[in-house]
Amino acid sequence: MPKYRLMTPGPTQVPEDALLRMARQVTHHRTAEFRELFAEALEGLKYVVQTSGDVIVLTSSGTGGMESAVTNFVPRGGKAIVLEAGRFAERWSEICAAFGIEVVKLEVPWGEAVDPAQVAALLADHPDAVAVYGTLMESSTGVGHDVKAIAEVVRESDALFVVDAISGGGVMECRFDDWGIDVLVIGSQKALMLPPGLAFVAVSEKAWQRAEAVDAQAFYFDLKQYRDKLAGDPDTPFTPAHTMIAALAENLRLIRREGIETVWERARVLGRATRAGITAIGLEVFAQRPADGLTSVRLPDDLDGAAFLKSLEARFGIKVAGGQGHLKGKIFRIAHMGIVDELDILGTLAAIELVLDQMGWHVELGAGATAATQVLAGRVGSAV
Amino acid sequence: MPKYRLMTPGPTQVPEDALLRMARQVTHHRTAEFRELFAEALEGLKYVVQTSGDVIVLTSSGTGGMESAVTNFVPRGGKAIVLEAGRFAERWSEICAAFGIEVVKLEVPWGEAVDPAQVAALLADHPDAVAVYGTLMESSTGVGHDVKAIAEVVRESDALFVVDAISGGGVMECRFDDWGIDVLVIGSQKALMLPPGLAFVAVSEKAWQRAEAVDAQAFYFDLKQYRDKLAGDPDTPFTPAHTMIAALAENLRLIRREGIETVWERARVLGRATRAGITAIGLEVFAQRPADGLTSVRLPDDLDGAAFLKSLEARFGIKVAGGQGHLKGKIFRIAHMGIVDELDILGTLAAIELVLDQMGWHVELGAGATAATQVLAGRVGSAV
Repeated sequence: MPKYRLMTPGPTQVPEDALLRMARQVTHHRTAEFRELFAEALEGLKYVVQTSGDVIVLTSSGTGGMESAVTNFVPRGGKAIVLEAGRFAERWSEICAAFGIEVVKLEVPWGEAVDPAQVAALLADHPDAVAVYGTLMESSTGVGHDVKAIAEVVRESDALFVVDAISGGGVMECRFDDWGIDVLVIGSQKALMLPPGLAFVAVSEKAWQRAEAVDAQAFYFDLKQYRDKLAGDPDTPFTPAHTMIAALAENLRLIRREGIETVWERARVLGRATRAGITAIGLEVFAQRPADGLTSVRLPDDLDGAAFLKSLEARFGIKVAGGQGHLKGKIFRIAHMGIVDELDILGTLAAIELVLDQMGWHVELGAGATAATQVLAGRVGSAV
Repeated sequence: MPKYRLMTPGPTQVPEDALLRMARQVTHHRTAEFRELFAEALEGLKYVVQTSGDVIVLTSSGTGGMESAVTNFVPRGGKAIVLEAGRFAERWSEICAAFGIEVVKLEVPWGEAVDPAQVAALLADHPDAVAVYGTLMESSTGVGHDVKAIAEVVRESDALFVVDAISGGGVMECRFDDWGIDVLVIGSQKALMLPPGLAFVAVSEKAWQRAEAVDAQAFYFDLKQYRDKLAGDPDTPFTPAHTMIAALAENLRLIRREGIETVWERARVLGRATRAGITAIGLEVFAQRPADGLTSVRLPDDLDGAAFLKSLEARFGIKVAGGQGHLKGKIFRIAHMGIVDELDILGTLAAIELVLDQMGWHVELGAGATAATQVLAGRVGSAV
C-alpha cells in the first residue's frame, strides 16, 4: 500500500487548505462574499503574472484558454506564426486551423528551444502576421523557451506575442508587463496547485485594442464579455467554477507569502538538483534548454520503459509522466513545481535508482541523492 | 450565526460524499483508475438522461455546453429556431448570433410556456431550419416546458431538437431516446448536485450524422473530438476536471440507488407542496406552467423585495434566488432539486412567513406549513 506521490507536470499536488476549501458546502456565487474572494484571486493572479493589466478567469481546461487567445485576437482568414517545438505548441496550430486562420510554422525539433533569430526572420517574411504563438515551458519536451528574448523580437514587429504558459506560469520566471507579452495563458493544475478546471488569460492593453477590431469567433470564450464584468466589484458573465476560485485564493496566498521570485528560484534550484541527480544515476536529460518546472529524462533504449514506470508507481507510489506523441516510450518527465519540494525530488531519485537496480541495471546506489544534495546545499554552481 | 441553507436553482447543495471526494489529494487523470471512474460516470449520466447513446462531458459551465450544441450542428449561415421564453432561452439566440447563424425566434412572454402548435407553425414557415432550440426548465421564470410535446412536433420536420436541460435535467422527467430529443445539455451545479464546472451533452445518432456534414466552428467544444475518445476505455481529448468527475460518480450512485423516476416524482411532490404553501401564505406563483425543480414567486408590489430576501438570509441563512433580467425585483425563486428535501421546503415556507410578519405584512402563521404538509402527506390530489 504505497503512498501516492504525484510528480507529474499537471496535475500537481494540491495543498491541504485548498483541498479542504473544496470540501466546504457550496454557497451562491452571485454574492458580495464571492466577488470579494474573486477580487482577491484576481490580484493574486496579476502578481503571479507580473502585470497591472487584466487577467481573465475561464472555467475550462488550459486548451479553452488557448482557444480564447486565438479567436479573440486573430480574425478568420488572418495569419498567425506558431513556434512549433512540441506537442502543446502544435495545439496552437490545430486551434488556428479549426477557426480558419492561416498558420506559418517555425518547426523546431522536439527537445530543442526556439531560436529568437529565426522568429525575427519569419516575422520579416510575414509582416502581415497578426500574432506569434509560443510556449513558456513546453511540458511535452521539458524545454523552457527564452520567452523574454522572443518577446523582444516580436515587439519589433506589428504582431502580438501570445504565450502558452499553461504549465510554466507561476514556476518559471515570466514578467508579463516588463517583457512585453500581449496574451498569456495559465492552467490551474500546474504551478497554481489546483485540480484541472480553470484557465487564466492575461491580456495587455495593446491586445485589447486589437481585439476591438476582431469579430471574435467566440461566445463562451469571448474575452471582452469577461473583461466587461471586471470593473468595480468583479464578476463573471457565466457561472464560474467558484469553489475552485475559492481554493485558488488559498493557493495564491501561499505564493504571495513566499514571494513569486522565491518560488521561481526554488524551482530553478530543484531543476538543477534533479538534473544533477539524473545525470549521476547515468541517465540523460532530454531537453537542450531545460525548463525550471520539469525535467524530461531519456529512457535508455535497452530499458523496458513501461515496466520501469509501473514499478516506480507500484513500489513507491511515485507517479511521473511518460512521453507524449512520438516521444511516448522515449522519455519520462518529473515535475518540480507547486508544493513539490526537495525531499520529493530526493525520494524520486532514490526510487529511480532502486527500480533500475531491481531491473538488473548497473547503478551506483546513492549517486543521485549525493549529486542532488550537493546542489541543494549550494556546493555546486548554477552551471548544472 | 445562522446555518447556511442554499435554496437556489443552481448551485444547489452538494452531498457530503461528493464534497469529501473533492478534498482527496489529486491523482493523475491518464490512468486506468480514472478511465474506470469515467466509464461509471458516463453510464450514470446515460441513465439520468435515459439514453443508450453518447453523453459528452465538457469542462465548462452550462453555457459552454450550449455553445457546443450550436456550433457542432448548425453551420455558419444556417438557420435556427429559438423558443425564446426566458433569460436562458435568449442565450441560445446570443450564441447563434456570435457564430453567424440566422435566428428565427418564437417569442413567448416570460412566465408562459411554449405552445407546441406555434412551434409547428414556425417549422412550416421555415422548412430550412436546421435545428430548434428549446428549454426543459427555464430557471429564470420557473416554467417547465412541455418538451415531450415539442419533440413530437419537431420530429415531424427535418430539424434537430436541441434542449437546454442545464437546470432541468435530472429533476424533471425527460426521456431522451423515447421522446426523440437530439441534443440535450445538463449542468453540474443543479440536479446533479456538484459545484459548477462541468457540462454534459447527450447526442442522438441522428445528430451525430448531421454533425458530420457541419464544419464546426469549434475546437475545445468540438464534440466529435470527445466522441472519438469514448470508444473502449473512455477518455477525454483535453484535461478534464477529473476531481469533479469523481465527485459526480458519487452523486450518480445516489441517483441510481433512488431511481430516476423516484427522483422526478419527489421533485413533483416538492413542487406541489411548495406551491400550496406559497399560495396559502398569500403569495402568488409566477409561472403559468410551473417546473418541478423550482418555484418562482411573485413579489408583491408593496413589499420591499430586497429587504425581504436579505432578512431571509440574515435571520435564517436561507439563500433563495431573486429575479433575472426584467424580472429583477419582481420575483424570487426557490429550488427543490437534488438533496433539497421536505424539511428544507417547510423551513423555507416558515421563514418566509416569519420574515413577512416581521415586516408588518399580514400573515396567518403556520398556513404555509399546513398547506404544504397536506400535500406531503398525500391528503390533496395532484391538481395543486
